[in-house]
Amino acid sequence: MKNYIKQNIDNSFDDQELPFATENIVGHAGTVFCKIGKVEDKIYFLKKGIVQVNLLNSKGDERIIDFFFPNNFFCSYSSFLNSNPSDVEIIALTDFEVEFITKDNLYKSYNNSILANKLGRIETEKLYLKKVKREKDFLTKTAEEHYLELIRVQSPLLTFLSIDKLAKYLGIHPESLSRIRRKKIKN
Amino acid sequence: MKNYIKQNIDNSFDDQELPFATENIVGHAGTVFCKIGKVEDKIYFLKKGIVQVNLLNSKGDERIIDFFFPNNFFCSYSSFLNSNPSDVEIIALTDFEVEFITKDNLYKSYNNSILANKLGRIETEKLYLKKVKREKDFLTKTAEEHYLELIRVQSPLLTFLSIDKLAKYLGIHPESLSRIRRKKIKN
Repeated sequence: MKNYIKQNIDNSFDDQELPFATENIVGHAGTVFCKIGKVEDKIYFLKKGIVQVNLLNSKGDERIIDFFFPNNFFCSYSSFLNSNPSDVEIIALTDFEVEFITKDNLYKSYNNSILANKLGRIETEKLYLKKVKREKDFLTKTAEEHYLELIRVQSPLLTFLSIDKLAKYLGIHPESLSRIRRKKIKN
Repeated sequence: MKNYIKQNIDNSFDDQELPFATENIVGHAGTVFCKIGKVEDKIYFLKKGIVQVNLLNSKGDERIIDFFFPNNFFCSYSSFLNSNPSDVEIIALTDFEVEFITKDNLYKSYNNSILANKLGRIETEKLYLKKVKREKDFLTKTAEEHYLELIRVQSPLLTFLSIDKLAKYLGIHPESLSRIRRKKIKN
């Protein structure tokens, strides 16, 4: 995390102590970081692996709303900020290594550390921009246009997601996605 | 803005100087704060009035994606953060009074002010939570459920938006919204 902070948050940061304690975890694919209904009390920095964020709707259908790759912070952030029970679950798709900060420690550091506040601000800006992009995709693109854009930008999602998961991410039925893919191959 | 900061950002802030310069503007309904294609270089604090955020899709259809009420910061924040041309326009729905900070001044204060970073962090957290709520509404609610929720929480949107605008906000055709309203009145 120290390298990441030096490169992305404050280039004057030079291996001194972080303003909060961190702990490491290594674990296996399938590990659940945050369960639905639990209040999130940690923020994780992903060092190795891929994690997926699932949302259950009122009918119990699973929707995939996000993925995180190494060198990013992740957690059930709405639950972390609001102290409400999480309505998403976060699950490791691969074996992983993370470094985490507890909410207590982070909030203490927010009281007096400019670096902690900079980190919180910049990481929240990144998460905000991701959500704005998702909103625009929903409002202005059909699922087909959204899928073609994933191809155009060579999204890593295409290489490791099954058709079924990709459909859940695009918010459409797997058969609709298969139809879009067949049409794309013909053209 | 000082009162707001004392109450919402840092209660030890006590009428000392803000870490950045601010300027006031008063103006009339219809004023455009940020045009599509322009890079946003200010953040506004809304003291009086209501503003609306419009997104144009590739076919030129207008979608309403957000509203802001007094005691909130607003701007074309993706454009502000990325320095990309704005793909939204922000327009005053009423006469208004705002206090603004230039991007230059804000970023200078981010270098050395804990208060500026706290403000940036907490306001971005609020915007993030708003976007997460929007995403969940799109993924888990039908337009009808979304509309019924606006009624349930007695959203101020219902009192000042025309049916046409409300439909643009819900992402549906005005006739579909009229159908939903007729159904609601009957039940």
